[in-house]
Amino acid sequence: MKIALAQLNYHIGNFEANTNKILSALDSARNAGADVVVFAELCIGGYPARDFLEFKEFIDLCEQSAQQIAAACTDIACIIGIPTPNKRKNKGGKDLHNSAYFIYDGKVQQIVNKALLPNYDVFDEYRYFEPETEFACVDYKGKRIALTICEDLWNTIENPLYVTRPMDVLIEQKPDVMINIAASPFAYNHDEERIAILGDNAKRYGLPLLYVNQVGAQTEIIFDGGSLVFDKNGSLVDEMPYFEEAITYYTLNDDATVTPQQPATVMDERQSDIEQIHQGLLLGIRDYFYKSGFKQAILGLSGGIDSAVVCALAAEALGAENVMAVLLPSKYSTGHSIQDAEDLVKNLGCKSELVEIKSITDAFETALHPQFEGLPFNIAEENLQARSRAVVLMAMCNKFGYILLNTSNKSESAVGYGTLYGDMCGGISVLGDVYKTQVYQLANYINRNTEIIPQNSIVKPPSAELRPDQKDSDSLPEYDMLDTILMQYVENRLSSGEIIALGYDEAVVRRVIKLVNTAEHKRYQTPPILRVSPKAFGMGRRMPIVGKYLS
Amino acid sequence: MKIALAQLNYHIGNFEANTNKILSALDSARNAGADVVVFAELCIGGYPARDFLEFKEFIDLCEQSAQQIAAACTDIACIIGIPTPNKRKNKGGKDLHNSAYFIYDGKVQQIVNKALLPNYDVFDEYRYFEPETEFACVDYKGKRIALTICEDLWNTIENPLYVTRPMDVLIEQKPDVMINIAASPFAYNHDEERIAILGDNAKRYGLPLLYVNQVGAQTEIIFDGGSLVFDKNGSLVDEMPYFEEAITYYTLNDDATVTPQQPATVMDERQSDIEQIHQGLLLGIRDYFYKSGFKQAILGLSGGIDSAVVCALAAEALGAENVMAVLLPSKYSTGHSIQDAEDLVKNLGCKSELVEIKSITDAFETALHPQFEGLPFNIAEENLQARSRAVVLMAMCNKFGYILLNTSNKSESAVGYGTLYGDMCGGISVLGDVYKTQVYQLANYINRNTEIIPQNSIVKPPSAELRPDQKDSDSLPEYDMLDTILMQYVENRLSSGEIIALGYDEAVVRRVIKLVNTAEHKRYQTPPILRVSPKAFGMGRRMPIVGKYLS
Repeated sequence: MKIALAQLNYHIGNFEANTNKILSALDSARNAGADVVVFAELCIGGYPARDFLEFKEFIDLCEQSAQQIAAACTDIACIIGIPTPNKRKNKGGKDLHNSAYFIYDGKVQQIVNKALLPNYDVFDEYRYFEPETEFACVDYKGKRIALTICEDLWNTIENPLYVTRPMDVLIEQKPDVMINIAASPFAYNHDEERIAILGDNAKRYGLPLLYVNQVGAQTEIIFDGGSLVFDKNGSLVDEMPYFEEAITYYTLNDDATVTPQQPATVMDERQSDIEQIHQGLLLGIRDYFYKSGFKQAILGLSGGIDSAVVCALAAEALGAENVMAVLLPSKYSTGHSIQDAEDLVKNLGCKSELVEIKSITDAFETALHPQFEGLPFNIAEENLQARSRAVVLMAMCNKFGYILLNTSNKSESAVGYGTLYGDMCGGISVLGDVYKTQVYQLANYINRNTEIIPQNSIVKPPSAELRPDQKDSDSLPEYDMLDTILMQYVENRLSSGEIIALGYDEAVVRRVIKLVNTAEHKRYQTPPILRVSPKAFGMGRRMPIVGKYLS
Repeated sequence: MKIALAQLNYHIGNFEANTNKILSALDSARNAGADVVVFAELCIGGYPARDFLEFKEFIDLCEQSAQQIAAACTDIACIIGIPTPNKRKNKGGKDLHNSAYFIYDGKVQQIVNKALLPNYDVFDEYRYFEPETEFACVDYKGKRIALTICEDLWNTIENPLYVTRPMDVLIEQKPDVMINIAASPFAYNHDEERIAILGDNAKRYGLPLLYVNQVGAQTEIIFDGGSLVFDKNGSLVDEMPYFEEAITYYTLNDDATVTPQQPATVMDERQSDIEQIHQGLLLGIRDYFYKSGFKQAILGLSGGIDSAVVCALAAEALGAENVMAVLLPSKYSTGHSIQDAEDLVKNLGCKSELVEIKSITDAFETALHPQFEGLPFNIAEENLQARSRAVVLMAMCNKFGYILLNTSNKSESAVGYGTLYGDMCGGISVLGDVYKTQVYQLANYINRNTEIIPQNSIVKPPSAELRPDQKDSDSLPEYDMLDTILMQYVENRLSSGEIIALGYDEAVVRRVIKLVNTAEHKRYQTPPILRVSPKAFGMGRRMPIVGKYLS
């Protein structure tokens, strides 16, 4: 049996585009002589469709797309992911199942429902779906297929469950092969995890495994593709490309081996975290604009490293001609900052404008003079600058149809080192899941062949330049230390006591954690953040605002 | 047996305050001769503690509080709600249970875990908790108590489930009484629903029912109290106060009747939606400030009805002396708007300032002249005004320690009729779950005894005053029609086709729904919204941003 794996980039709610993409992949696979084409989890409708799933119309449109696809499957089979009504709903439970259709002879022959529903981090599947408790293999062309959906195969041998694992039932039916369709989001460590866990399961059940992931970004969540094929010993046979669409073909032989029809690719060495983050962010930017129907980005360019990296990424993702960099110096901006920003613009060839904000902040200070008279310069005046810049950038968005890119990094976002409605504005946050120390690595990676980001932006001490001679290190610990403490608190969820026990200075740890906690109200109102780590701010980390925080 | 119901206002993560409040209620109940005091669901730690629950330290602190409470229960029993470790975790599943401790003789005697976990709208309980599947009654002083937690008793007889209902098991053990501890949030229709569903269950199982809810707001979620006591026929015996703390006492007699120890209160007539919304918003504002450690609110006062209502609510919730109203006229503000705003300030006795924004918007337009030259006035210039106001208000927050109140209503928020980083700013949104037509009702309710909100603010046609002679009705359908369409789409989740079939104009319906959908990116960045309806924007309605929306 010849199996095609279709790793495609879907668009939530765009039934026409998704269906056409699937139909076109079916055509290619038919021409290549495939018996069955495997698409990803919830490819009809897109993932995560979130509360769209609560609209009956959305579910009806999914079914219509599926019928359109079925009509095209007269001489080929396919597996598609789709939300379907829970037929036992009259006895309570959730309205839907997260399902796979096995389609051939022009109609849906079998429906498989997901049993293990992720409901952690960015996942909310129990919000919509009822878990399945009964399982059956799919028979097709003399082969018996154990078909499961994503999380159904996402656990290690060492982690037994007290709910039933679908494969533990299906294996009794003596299948020949496992197929798993997934929507498994990118994080810089996720590719290795996938290979380990899925390989483990192939070996555990002694069956070859074909695994198809989505690719493409849906707002903050980036799917990296990297679909996988394992033999029955758990060895990786083929690894599909990362961060791009692809269709590949395999022959399932009678001896339960799997032969790729194209030269197999198994990476000798994993890509570094930074290479992966770089590719993920490019895809995230590109899809955010493309799927929103926008082309042109704008950002404020300070001469510092964060906005420089965002500008370089945007130019690579969207084309330099679609990026407008605005220099917005204030009286506290240093001359070299402007020069560094101008150098970057020249290196990239993007558009740029310079708008002085002094007359604007002066106007605010004059208007507020009756209220502020006699009071010392403080954060109010600092923030006036950041907010004046945001208003200028947003005015340009409104006038010319740009989307503003947010340039805050994860370290700043964590400790609230940013101005709400100022530099925290934007349609999408590019670096909000990238710690400052990683931003440096990213800058050096961007410069790997030639200097794009001016060396001076990389080596100078970071500064918000909102008061004379300001440096980030006036208010924050050095980023090396800050980022390791943040990693322990945010990613590993250790308490201050546990972090201090690892050898960090008590006063620093308590201060950092307090800063993180008191910034919750700011992070609540920031743009969606392209997720590249296993724990990003946003929908994957949900904290109360008025809580009294531990520190 | 004498049972005390303690309906208290907890603060998420504030272990000291919550524990002291519980200890003090235990003292009162002991003095009143109670045998057992019933506190609400997850009273230790607060609800919803959200991802705090993923920190081991948080769970440890909950247990420490429980032990402190247990030590005080030598001569009295109590029931408290607490997150506890899932002991079967070595076989997979979630880390925690949502539990109740039954405490007496100075220690935890029995642990009851919640079985039915809400995971819809604002609820995320499957994110943290493993559902319980085994159930046992609690025996105490010769009575057998069927103790359950909130959702465990939240279904009607007409709605059978295919998971096990805890009471269906517990009833076999022949209990004498049901006790249910809850954290059931306010919505203007929820009190009636609670009485109906819980009364149904008392009758179904033929047992008296004592039900204790939380009271108080946690950021956007308001708990309204209104704890309930039913007899075994399902008749309401007593209804505790709404929107305030209280402790009440009941004798459980041997004939399974329940006698209140204070004059029983059962409302003859339900409060109107608007009365309830009014009380809910006052509590929401008060607790947001109190639990954040702030006292003083600021808002922009336009002379229109929305900011007038917010100002009046804030003055009632926080004291007029703690409310700063800022008049921020532009060249498009009409003279009567300023007069209406000044009249309101006088009526309320709150503080006020006037800051002209013309010089500020002029400065922006001058600075942007090279970019904007020759282009017509459009939304860019309109938004400059709204954003200049926000920057002034935020500068005053930063200088004086105010929290900015957002004044957008639900109709505006729904259709995106507001300026991101302009009038959509604020620490908390007061009216974001109140449709414009309800804002009028609220204004009239606030004026029920005396004119507080100037009649002119109520009767004049609504306008954003961002260009000459602008009226909301230039861009939007009349609010009566808009709000009914929005209600069908947002609350009832009907499709455009279904709404048109109800008799609404097709073009209007499609336009409104399109506006709602294309405003998702704006709503993503708005402040938390005090939730008063069954479907509020925010954590209870989760939509994708880059999705292609139905319309």
